[in-house]
Amino acid sequence: MKAVQVIEYDKPPVLVDVKDPEATGPLDVVVRVGGAGVCRTDLHILEGQWKEKSGVALPYTIGHENAGWVEAVGQAVTNVRVGDPVILHPLITCGLCRACRAGDDVHCMDSAFPGIDADGGYAEYVKTTARSVVPLDPSLEPASVAALADAGLTAYHAAAKAARALRPGDRAVVIGAGGLGHIGIQVLRALSPAEMIVIDRSAEALALADGLGADHTFLADGTEAERILDLTGGRGAEAVLDFVGEGGAVETGVACLRRNGNYYVIGYGGRIDVPTIDVISTEINFIGNLVGSYNDLSELMVLAARGKVSLHTQQYPLTSFRQALEDLEAGAVRGRAILIP
Amino acid sequence: MKAVQVIEYDKPPVLVDVKDPEATGPLDVVVRVGGAGVCRTDLHILEGQWKEKSGVALPYTIGHENAGWVEAVGQAVTNVRVGDPVILHPLITCGLCRACRAGDDVHCMDSAFPGIDADGGYAEYVKTTARSVVPLDPSLEPASVAALADAGLTAYHAAAKAARALRPGDRAVVIGAGGLGHIGIQVLRALSPAEMIVIDRSAEALALADGLGADHTFLADGTEAERILDLTGGRGAEAVLDFVGEGGAVETGVACLRRNGNYYVIGYGGRIDVPTIDVISTEINFIGNLVGSYNDLSELMVLAARGKVSLHTQQYPLTSFRQALEDLEAGAVRGRAILIP
Amino acid sequence: MKAVQVIEYDKPPVLVDVKDPEATGPLDVVVRVGGAGVCRTDLHILEGQWKEKSGVALPYTIGHENAGWVEAVGQAVTNVRVGDPVILHPLITCGLCRACRAGDDVHCMDSAFPGIDADGGYAEYVKTTARSVVPLDPSLEPASVAALADAGLTAYHAAAKAARALRPGDRAVVIGAGGLGHIGIQVLRALSPAEMIVIDRSAEALALADGLGADHTFLADGTEAERILDLTGGRGAEAVLDFVGEGGAVETGVACLRRNGNYYVIGYGGRIDVPTIDVISTEINFIGNLVGSYNDLSELMVLAARGKVSLHTQQYPLTSFRQALEDLEAGAVRGRAILIP
Amino acid sequence: MKAVQVIEYDKPPVLVDVKDPEATGPLDVVVRVGGAGVCRTDLHILEGQWKEKSGVALPYTIGHENAGWVEAVGQAVTNVRVGDPVILHPLITCGLCRACRAGDDVHCMDSAFPGIDADGGYAEYVKTTARSVVPLDPSLEPASVAALADAGLTAYHAAAKAARALRPGDRAVVIGAGGLGHIGIQVLRALSPAEMIVIDRSAEALALADGLGADHTFLADGTEAERILDLTGGRGAEAVLDFVGEGGAVETGVACLRRNGNYYVIGYGGRIDVPTIDVISTEINFIGNLVGSYNDLSELMVLAARGKVSLHTQQYPLTSFRQALEDLEAGAVRGRAILIP
Repeated sequence: MKAVQVIEYDKPPVLVDVKDPEATGPLDVVVRVGGAGVCRTDLHILEGQWKEKSGVALPYTIGHENAGWVEAVGQAVTNVRVGDPVILHPLITCGLCRACRAGDDVHCMDSAFPGIDADGGYAEYVKTTARSVVPLDPSLEPASVAALADAGLTAYHAAAKAARALRPGDRAVVIGAGGLGHIGIQVLRALSPAEMIVIDRSAEALALADGLGADHTFLADGTEAERILDLTGGRGAEAVLDFVGEGGAVETGVACLRRNGNYYVIGYGGRIDVPTIDVISTEINFIGNLVGSYNDLSELMVLAARGKVSLHTQQYPLTSFRQALEDLEAGAVRGRAILIP
Repeated sequence: MKAVQVIEYDKPPVLVDVKDPEATGPLDVVVRVGGAGVCRTDLHILEGQWKEKSGVALPYTIGHENAGWVEAVGQAVTNVRVGDPVILHPLITCGLCRACRAGDDVHCMDSAFPGIDADGGYAEYVKTTARSVVPLDPSLEPASVAALADAGLTAYHAAAKAARALRPGDRAVVIGAGGLGHIGIQVLRALSPAEMIVIDRSAEALALADGLGADHTFLADGTEAERILDLTGGRGAEAVLDFVGEGGAVETGVACLRRNGNYYVIGYGGRIDVPTIDVISTEINFIGNLVGSYNDLSELMVLAARGKVSLHTQQYPLTSFRQALEDLEAGAVRGRAILIP
Repeated sequence: MKAVQVIEYDKPPVLVDVKDPEATGPLDVVVRVGGAGVCRTDLHILEGQWKEKSGVALPYTIGHENAGWVEAVGQAVTNVRVGDPVILHPLITCGLCRACRAGDDVHCMDSAFPGIDADGGYAEYVKTTARSVVPLDPSLEPASVAALADAGLTAYHAAAKAARALRPGDRAVVIGAGGLGHIGIQVLRALSPAEMIVIDRSAEALALADGLGADHTFLADGTEAERILDLTGGRGAEAVLDFVGEGGAVETGVACLRRNGNYYVIGYGGRIDVPTIDVISTEINFIGNLVGSYNDLSELMVLAARGKVSLHTQQYPLTSFRQALEDLEAGAVRGRAILIP
Repeated sequence: MKAVQVIEYDKPPVLVDVKDPEATGPLDVVVRVGGAGVCRTDLHILEGQWKEKSGVALPYTIGHENAGWVEAVGQAVTNVRVGDPVILHPLITCGLCRACRAGDDVHCMDSAFPGIDADGGYAEYVKTTARSVVPLDPSLEPASVAALADAGLTAYHAAAKAARALRPGDRAVVIGAGGLGHIGIQVLRALSPAEMIVIDRSAEALALADGLGADHTFLADGTEAERILDLTGGRGAEAVLDFVGEGGAVETGVACLRRNGNYYVIGYGGRIDVPTIDVISTEINFIGNLVGSYNDLSELMVLAARGKVSLHTQQYPLTSFRQALEDLEAGAVRGRAILIP
C-alpha cells in the first residue's frame, strides 16, 4: 500500500510502498483509511521534537487522527465487522490494567500510539485493535470526523469535565477559539447551561465563537480580564478552559477565575507559575487535561451525529500530503486539513 | 476585660483593659474564652504583613483559634445556650449568599475573620455569631481543642478531600509532619485506607508520624522522590498532600505524583511553577485548600471526641502571652501554644 | 389586608380581613404578593388531608407558591431591599442546622412551610425570611413565575439531579408530561444531552412534550414499555423520571429501566413494590425527590430568565379564588391557575 | 481431572472424571484450584432454582468462588504468568462494551459466570480469562480468600459505596452480621468513620460484630428500630446496609432511615414495598447492589493482605463435597466451607 513515512528527521516525509498491515493478533483490527487529520503535532514530529519522547524507529508512517472502514479483524474481535465505518481512538490500550478497567484508558500502563510511536494513518490502511474502534453512525462520513479523533477528543474531554461542575448562573471563560477551542465551545454549549465568555486574539475566531453559541466574546487585547471581572461583579468565572496555555493566557485566565474556581489546562507551551499563597487563599484548582477516553469518543460521536458538534475540513488526496503540511505550516488551512487515500 | 491588642505594627502587643463585648446583633454569640491558639500568623500580623490584606484598624485584639463557653446570645440564637462549651469556626459568615447556602461557607461573600480583621480571642471574651459556634462533646476541653479551630481545620479539610478520592491500594504522600501535617496524618489515617508515606526534614517529626499511623517515613534528604518512585514501581503516588509549599517541596511533590494524580496545596510560601505540557501530558491536578467549613469543623470535633485526632498543647496564662509568642518564634513550643485567660 | 383563609375543613375557604403581617423578627421579610399559584395540594388541605400532618391551627391562610415584591424587612436583612421583585422558596429554614449548612436546606431540622403550616400567599401580603427570597431578574413577572416556586422547583430538582448522571447517548424516560412533567422536560432539555422519551396518557400532553424538545413520545397504552425496550436494543433507559407515581406508572417505569439505571420517584399516590432480588440482580436505584433547595430555585430562575423554562398560566383576581379552585378541580385550568391580589 | 458436576436437578452432585480445561482462546487462563467456596447459591442450583435463569446445559461443574494458581495462559495474556497465585473475579467479561470500559464490568453486555452458566471451580482446574484474575499478595493463601470472590466481593462493593457518602458523625445501620454482613462490617470499619450500629437475630453474631468494630449491637427483637431512633435523637441513620432483604428487614430498615438517607439493598428474598409518598416526603433512596467489579476485588485483596478483612473458613477435601454441602444445609459450618482439591 501507499504510506507517507518519516525517513529522516528534518527532512520532508516521503510517499512509499509498504506492506499492507495484517490482523495477526487476536484483537487486531485493520482499517481502510477514509480520512487522516493533519495536525500541528505532525510538523513537530518531522522536526524531530518527538524523537526521544516517542523512541520510534525510522522509517515509520505518521498520522494519529484516523477514521475509515474495518478491513480485517483478528480471531477474538466481536465488536465490529468488516465494512463497518469507524473512528479510531488514538491509543491502543491493554484493557487489563487498573486504569483501563476504571474507565481511564488514557492512562493505560501499556499503551501504543499509532502515528506517534507506531505506524499511523497517512496511508491506505492502518492497524489498531478492537479496543480502539468506535462504530460510526451511518450519518457520519469518516473523512468528516477524522480530526475529532484526537484534537476534538481532547476538547470534548475537558469541556465535558468542566460541564459536570457548572450550574445555571455559573460562568465559563474559554480562552482560544481555534482548532480545539471551537470544538470545546460546541461541547460546552451542548452539555452545560453556563454563561459562556470566549476570548481570542482574532476577531474572526470570535465571530465563529459567536455563531457557535458563545454568550459574550472579548478580544484578547489586554483588557479582557478586567472586562470579565466587570461582567461578573468583580468575582470572576467559576471555570476557565484554557486552550492556549502560553503567551500570557495563564496569567489572564487566573486573573479572571473566581474563588474556588477550576482552571482547566488544555493548551500548552507556557508555564503555570503561581505563588502557592494565591492558590490556597482563593482555593483554586488547576485541572490537567489529556485526550479523552474511548467512552468520551463514543459520546463525542453521539454529539456529532446529532449535529451538535461539527468541524470545517479541507480535504487533500493522500498524494498531496506535502501541500497539506505546507498549507498547515503557512496558516492557510481553514478548519482542519484531512488526507484522503 | 483583659485583652492582648496590637497597638502598632512591629511593636510588641500589649495587655489592656477593654470593654466586654456584648451580644447586640440578633445572631451574636459572646464566648468566654477557654483557650486561644498562638499561631505563626499572629507573628506575621505583628510584623505588619497582614496590614493591607486585612485593612484592620488598630488597636485590635488578635487570636483566631478560639474555644470556650457561651456567655451571652442574641435574640435570634437557637442553636446554643449560655454555658455550652463551643469551638469557634474562624469565620463569621452571612448564611445568605450562594456559597454559604451550598455548604461552602469559607467562600462566603460577606464574611469577617475575628483575630485578623476584627477583635479576636487573646482576651477574656470574644464575639462571634450563631453560625460560627460548634458545640463540643463533654469529653473535650476548650483549651485542648482550640488550636484545631484554624490550623487543624485546614489540615482536616485537605485530608478529608484527599480521602474521598483514595481507595485501598492507592498511595498518599504527606510532605511535612509539623503543626498542620501531623493533624493531616491523623485525619488521613481515620478516613482513608491509602498507604501513607510521610516525608520531613526532621527525624523527630518522622518518629511522630510513625506513631500516628504512617506506613513509611522518609527523611527529606534529596533522595525521597526517588525512594517513593521505587516504592511505587516507578509510577508515583495517587495523591500528594503538601503541608510545606516552599523550599523545594513542590518540585519533590510533583516528581513523585502519579499520572492523573492530585496535588493538594496546603502549605505556602513558594510557587507552583510547572510547564503546562507537564500538566497535560500526565493529566495531573493542583487542588487548592483553604480552611474548612463549619461542617468540616463539626466532623473534626467528632474525630477528636473519638480520640482519632489529638494535639499536644503547651498552655500559658493569658498574661504570659509575650512568653508564648517568644517561645513560638524561638521554636521552643512543642505542639501548639495555648493562652488561657 | 384581604386573605383567603381555611375556617373549617371540608368547607369552602373564605375571603376575610386580617391584620397585615409585620417584619418583627430580625430576618423577617414581608412580601406584597404578585401572584400565588393554585395547587392540587390546596384542594387536599381544604378536604382536611393535611390536618394531622401539618398540625396547623385554623383559621389560617393557604397558598404555598408565591412571588411578589419586598414590602418590609427585619433589621438583619442584607440580601434584599424594599421593592425588589422576588420569588419565595416554599420553606422557611433555620440556616444553622447541618442540613442547611450543607446546601440541603429542604431537610432543615427546624423549618416552617407558609401555606401549609403557617399563613401563606392567598393574600395581599405574606411573611417569610431573608433565607427564602430569591431576587428575580427584571425580565420576570412575579405572577408568571409564582407556580415555579413549588411544583416547578420539584421538577427542577429531580431533572437536574438526573441530568448530572446522564451522558450523550444515554436515554431518559419521562413518565407524565403534565404540570410537573412539562417543567421537567424543559429542564432536562436545558441541562442534558440525553435522548428523551416521554410517555403520557394524553395525546395533547405528548404534543406539548414534542414541542418542548422530547425526542420520542409514546402514548401510555400498555405497549409503551415494550416500545422503549425496542428503541433501546432491549436494554432499557439509563434514567426514568416518574412524575406520576401511581396507577401502574412504577411497574411500567421499572420495566423499561436499564441495568444499573436510576428511577427518580417524583409523583406519588401508589407504591414502589419490587422484589429485592430484582433490585439487586439488575442493581437499580430508586431515588426520592422532594422540592428543591434555595440554590435550586435560583438556578431555575436563571433558566426562566433565559427563556429555557416557561409555564402557561391562567390568572384570576384574588377575589375569584373560588372560581380558580373550582376550575382546578374540574380540570378546566390550562397550565397553572394564579391568584393576583 | 476430578470435578463435582450437577447431573440432574434435585439429585446430589457427583464427582466425575472430565477432560482438563485448556487455554484455547487468546485471553484464556486455566487456574489450578486452591480453594472453592461452598455457597448457599450452590444448594439453590442443585434444587433447580437457577435452571431457567442460567440456561446451563447439564452436566456441568458448579463452584463460583475460586482461587488458586495460574496453570496455563492463552497467547495474548500479559498480566499473569504460570504459577502466580490468583483469585477469580466471578464473571468473565468482554472488556469491549461501554460498561466494561467504564469500570462497571459487572454489567458487561456479554459476560459468562463460571459455576453458574459455565464450568466452575469444584474441580482440580477451572478456566477463566485474563480479565478475571486478580494476582494475590504472597501473604494470602488461595484457600483462605476464595470465599471473598463472590460473597465477600458483594459485601465490599456495597460497604465501599456506602462509605463514600459517610462522614464523621454519620450513623450506619448494618442489618445482618452473617456471611456477607460480617465482611461488610469489616469493610465499613476499614473505610469509614461512621458510627456503626449492627442488628441481628443472633446474639452470637452480634458478639462477632462487636469484636469486628461495631459501635453498637442490638438484638433484632422488634424493638431495634425504636432503639436506633432513640440513639439518633429521633432522626434515624444516614445509611442502612441491609444484608438480609427479607422477613421484616426492609420494614425495620426503612423505619430507622433518616430523611435523605440511603438504603443499600444487598440481601434478597423479600420485597421493597413502600408508598411513593413516603419515598418523596423523606427523599430517601434505595440503592441496589450486585457483586463488585474487578477493581473492587483488587481493593478487597489489599484489605485482606493488610489484615483488615478476614474470614473464618472450614476446609474440606474436594472429595468430601457432600459433607460440605450437608453441613451448610444443616447450619453446621462456622464461617465459610471451602473445598480443597
